[in-house]
Amino acid sequence: MHELHFAVPMAGAVLCTLNTRYDSAMLSSLLTHSEAKIIFVDYQLLEIARGAFQVHEKTGAEPPLLVLISESDGPCPVDITSNTYEYESLLANGQNGFQVRRPNCEWDPISLNYTSGTTSRPKGVVYSHRGAYLNSLATVLLHGIGSMPVYLWTVPMFHCNGWCLIWGLAAQGGTNICLRKVTPKGIFDSIAKHSVTHMGGAPTVLNMIVNSPVSDQSPLPHKVEVMTGGAPPPPQIISKMEELGFGVSHLYGLTETYGPGTSCIWKPEWDSLPLDERSKLKARQGVHHLGLEEVDIRDPVTLARVPADGKTMGEIMFRGNTVMSGYLKDLKATEEAFSGGWFRSGDLAVKHPDNYIEVKDRLKDIVISGGENISTVEVETVLFGHPAVLEAAVVARPDDHWGQTPCAFVKLKEGYDHVSAQEIIKFCRDHLPHYMAPRTVIFEDLPKTSTGKTQKFILREKAKTMGSLS
Amino acid sequence: MHELHFAVPMAGAVLCTLNTRYDSAMLSSLLTHSEAKIIFVDYQLLEIARGAFQVHEKTGAEPPLLVLISESDGPCPVDITSNTYEYESLLANGQNGFQVRRPNCEWDPISLNYTSGTTSRPKGVVYSHRGAYLNSLATVLLHGIGSMPVYLWTVPMFHCNGWCLIWGLAAQGGTNICLRKVTPKGIFDSIAKHSVTHMGGAPTVLNMIVNSPVSDQSPLPHKVEVMTGGAPPPPQIISKMEELGFGVSHLYGLTETYGPGTSCIWKPEWDSLPLDERSKLKARQGVHHLGLEEVDIRDPVTLARVPADGKTMGEIMFRGNTVMSGYLKDLKATEEAFSGGWFRSGDLAVKHPDNYIEVKDRLKDIVISGGENISTVEVETVLFGHPAVLEAAVVARPDDHWGQTPCAFVKLKEGYDHVSAQEIIKFCRDHLPHYMAPRTVIFEDLPKTSTGKTQKFILREKAKTMGSLS
Repeated sequence: MHELHFAVPMAGAVLCTLNTRYDSAMLSSLLTHSEAKIIFVDYQLLEIARGAFQVHEKTGAEPPLLVLISESDGPCPVDITSNTYEYESLLANGQNGFQVRRPNCEWDPISLNYTSGTTSRPKGVVYSHRGAYLNSLATVLLHGIGSMPVYLWTVPMFHCNGWCLIWGLAAQGGTNICLRKVTPKGIFDSIAKHSVTHMGGAPTVLNMIVNSPVSDQSPLPHKVEVMTGGAPPPPQIISKMEELGFGVSHLYGLTETYGPGTSCIWKPEWDSLPLDERSKLKARQGVHHLGLEEVDIRDPVTLARVPADGKTMGEIMFRGNTVMSGYLKDLKATEEAFSGGWFRSGDLAVKHPDNYIEVKDRLKDIVISGGENISTVEVETVLFGHPAVLEAAVVARPDDHWGQTPCAFVKLKEGYDHVSAQEIIKFCRDHLPHYMAPRTVIFEDLPKTSTGKTQKFILREKAKTMGSLS
Repeated sequence: MHELHFAVPMAGAVLCTLNTRYDSAMLSSLLTHSEAKIIFVDYQLLEIARGAFQVHEKTGAEPPLLVLISESDGPCPVDITSNTYEYESLLANGQNGFQVRRPNCEWDPISLNYTSGTTSRPKGVVYSHRGAYLNSLATVLLHGIGSMPVYLWTVPMFHCNGWCLIWGLAAQGGTNICLRKVTPKGIFDSIAKHSVTHMGGAPTVLNMIVNSPVSDQSPLPHKVEVMTGGAPPPPQIISKMEELGFGVSHLYGLTETYGPGTSCIWKPEWDSLPLDERSKLKARQGVHHLGLEEVDIRDPVTLARVPADGKTMGEIMFRGNTVMSGYLKDLKATEEAFSGGWFRSGDLAVKHPDNYIEVKDRLKDIVISGGENISTVEVETVLFGHPAVLEAAVVARPDDHWGQTPCAFVKLKEGYDHVSAQEIIKFCRDHLPHYMAPRTVIFEDLPKTSTGKTQKFILREKAKTMGSLS
């Protein structure tokens, strides 16, 4: 996937990296939607691809050429037919003198990225050469990646084109360390072995690291810079990561903004604050990066700018070169996303007096109880403060009296099975206004996307089926 | 000048920073050429500006508005008339709600930069918003400038818009340290006092630093990164700077390429080489930066690419966003500069097998003796290896027999007045092919531009008047 980030655009084609957790049906549907001409398949995923081809055949559609990436030194597990190639053999037949096919125009597409599907069916987000170039430079600057970095991939490269970091790291002479399976032991071992300088990780990955058994942890050879994003990181997790010797930067963005669009740029005057205050400041989404023109918080209906008072909520809106060109073959969704001339993130946030933004909730996730807006992110932050809580997600449960009430789904840490729903609710009431505390607490594993984001729409459906409490 | 880098473009105007060493006649001529509407004048330069206004008056032209930047806490040395303002008072009358006037198009000019006049009368180089934005990002990356840098200005900000570093440093939250007078003591003191992390300096400034009395030097608080350029730095000076604790990066470019276009990016495998080999590698001009599309060495006539053999000379040519829009009101010079579709640097160079370029000479400076090309830069490098030589410049002296012979102008270090021309010539013959060694050595101070570049055209004129040796 790393090599193809260079080869495909240089061949004048458009790169579309697919989620390795798709099933054959989803794969077939995206191959059709993207009109893919060639599919490169890792040997571990060959059966999924074959399954997708079978679905294709039923519809009479021509499947793409298949190029198999076989196991190093392993036998080639497919018969090489006219429609199937083996990657290394294909490379061996390449022309050394091949002239790079440059885009005709800098706005030409360089890649197609299907969204991870937290809230809906994957949509095909189109990135341009211009946007990808600027995002590559901005991302490197944003992460403080100097010359010759060593980057550990825990966020999959298929996710937002790896935030354009694959290109950015190459520009800085970087080394890429990849893991077939992301485990805390694998992360600690790779850092020690390869002298990793930078890595990325969704809050769930950080959660996994701080909660890993001490036997899986190795001391860090030096401070390792971690960029986190994808969901607001609970301050407690940031604190624990820093205690382990990681430096955590907090970024915020969407697939539609080429990955991170804002960063909670650290101010030196915050250094002397207590750890918990620092973590709270760092949990904010911050300010836009150098590749973007503008990020603003505006009323979703009137488009009026909200005051920078840290209280008034509005929708986060983006404008600039590193905002997607649009959704492939979906003019309606594209027009909706850009209505009013801004890209609508669908996220609700406040702007603080220092102009740093802070996400309060997804527009779709917010709980409205007795006419009051309840930020599910704020309730989750309190839940993470309880020593027994490993993971937590809050959604709206319909209520005949209040309209909605907050319902918490919680995964407990090992050895804490004795903790009751009542205890969790009491803990929340001690730390939040009464109306914000969950009325319902369900203990169970949380459904996740392949990038580790909680699929709240599944939990919302569950809460709906529970009916009213009142 | 720093503040105006932001204020002028935000007012929708074009910034033109002028050399502080111009006299009134030159200033008047550039005010007319640039059609300046307002001139901001430091109190130390007020007499020059008044002189220029007098020249203006003789031609009947309307002089621009004058805004005087008076001495902090000092009295205001001018009568404020309808055509004259005082800077701080003017700011105090500003509107807080002023709406930034953005360019209509990213190709709109942001600044006008008069070349330093090494080879000819100053030409007005136009930079675009697009180019300046990209160069700001590229320059920060190129210099490894991370978050919150402290930059010491020894290269004047009026030179190539400070390589767009004023904007780049602001983007990284930087602090700017300025000196009214650049002296070795001032440099060492500022580094210690302000914890300077980065600075720039022409080779003449580095020469001044390494040859300064020990009493003027203070130990560096940490490694200070120095970017040098403007002329190929003699390896000996790079070595001595590194012995003092500076890290030297070598950059190459022209006003027409927004300052540095290439950098001798350091490869980790060079770390273990002896100091003199490392310095020789670092004296090469290197590879193009991330904001440029391409740098190539081509035959000035046929435009054929020269082989990467480290031997074949050709002209350095540039292409990309960070190449000037053109020369103001000079279509002929613009067309010549871009003839063949590339920006012609006028510099002769070779390309090494690792694709790093190395400047051999200015196209106009090269000496052709008995049909052989002699790189004056190579001869100067040998001259700098002589312990008595402080500064050296080689030009062609006309010769009836050979066509031309190399003529060296040398400034000796203090206490070395006893060294003879014969000794210098012998030293060169010991280190160079016989035909490359100077036939003539003149001891004198070298004429310089305000940015510290030797004005070879003056020396060439001198050598011409000497007539033939043969």
